[in-house]
Amino acid sequence: MAKTPNAARRSESSRQAIFAAAAELCAERGYGRLTIEAIASRAGVSKKTIYRWWPSKGAVILELIDEAATADAHHPDTGDLATDLRTQLTAVIGMLTPPHTSVFAGVIAEAQHDPALARDLRERLIEPRIAQFKDRMRRAQQQGQLSPDADLDVALDLLYGPLYHRLAFHLGMPDPAYLDTLIAHALHALTPPAAPDPGSPPGER
Amino acid sequence: MAKTPNAARRSESSRQAIFAAAAELCAERGYGRLTIEAIASRAGVSKKTIYRWWPSKGAVILELIDEAATADAHHPDTGDLATDLRTQLTAVIGMLTPPHTSVFAGVIAEAQHDPALARDLRERLIEPRIAQFKDRMRRAQQQGQLSPDADLDVALDLLYGPLYHRLAFHLGMPDPAYLDTLIAHALHALTPPAAPDPGSPPGER
Repeated sequence: MAKTPNAARRSESSRQAIFAAAAELCAERGYGRLTIEAIASRAGVSKKTIYRWWPSKGAVILELIDEAATADAHHPDTGDLATDLRTQLTAVIGMLTPPHTSVFAGVIAEAQHDPALARDLRERLIEPRIAQFKDRMRRAQQQGQLSPDADLDVALDLLYGPLYHRLAFHLGMPDPAYLDTLIAHALHALTPPAAPDPGSPPGER
Repeated sequence: MAKTPNAARRSESSRQAIFAAAAELCAERGYGRLTIEAIASRAGVSKKTIYRWWPSKGAVILELIDEAATADAHHPDTGDLATDLRTQLTAVIGMLTPPHTSVFAGVIAEAQHDPALARDLRERLIEPRIAQFKDRMRRAQQQGQLSPDADLDVALDLLYGPLYHRLAFHLGMPDPAYLDTLIAHALHALTPPAAPDPGSPPGER
């Protein structure tokens, strides 16, 4: 059942044309108004070709984002945690910018009222990347760059939360200087205090 | 031009019926499928009555959320910052739960591809509440519960970010114990370290 080399090459070029068309149309009219018909027409393929590979426009877009994130937003390990977080978070900010035309931001919005898309987004894209983030943080713990007691769920929330809070209310993505400030604060939050105990509310100090 | 007491009472009861109908319909079918016609029918008023007071369904819903937030999600000041943040954040979590039927979550999603709604949401609801948050944090600084050098934009991002990160990817809202953990970490992040300088990346320590 293996494809001939030429057929495989044709398939891959169609696949890339479909991704390019979907990304352009998302940027032009937003995810909500994207249709398989428009993607097919722009990519110069039949709707049948698209449906042979993907069950829905959401599936096309998730695979496109997955590929872009794998290429651009992986977790580097230079041995310097703050620098590596800046690199990775800058890539995520790039994927969310500008918010009104970002394919990623469009899928996040659509997933809020499409439970099947929300499940696919979480299971296929987000959960594997949360696992990659935690792997990187565990290496930082082994290298002594992060406290062995640091709570990695809290780390995730403090480092990535600001992006989605700002996306939700169109408050503007962090600029490079502010991103460094956020990372420094988040890493400080994960460093155990000398005293007092971080669990005791300030009023009880 | 003052209304008679009876007319004012009728107006207020219509207004509350419209809000109740809009909230119910949002929960049942989501913000996207909400129509002024359905709200009017459920509330037992004419569409004309709704359009006399509000230009769009977005305006109805924003006023409804604004009233709910004012009633439930103001910033208390008991003198204990961590406790007061827990109270206020718990109210915000309540407004975002469950995400698929929350009126607030629905508007946030819709605003991602409706720039006018996004502007109204930010200017009418969010920016005034960010100002209230910062007022509360400044009182905590005056009371010695928070460092006078604490960056209040960072405080906002670290405390509220986790909610919207979790909303975006349907990761589940923080439970009470985890919310306390997040607040303790965020307040620790805002407390200057004894040493080293928080501005220097860990790799340079």
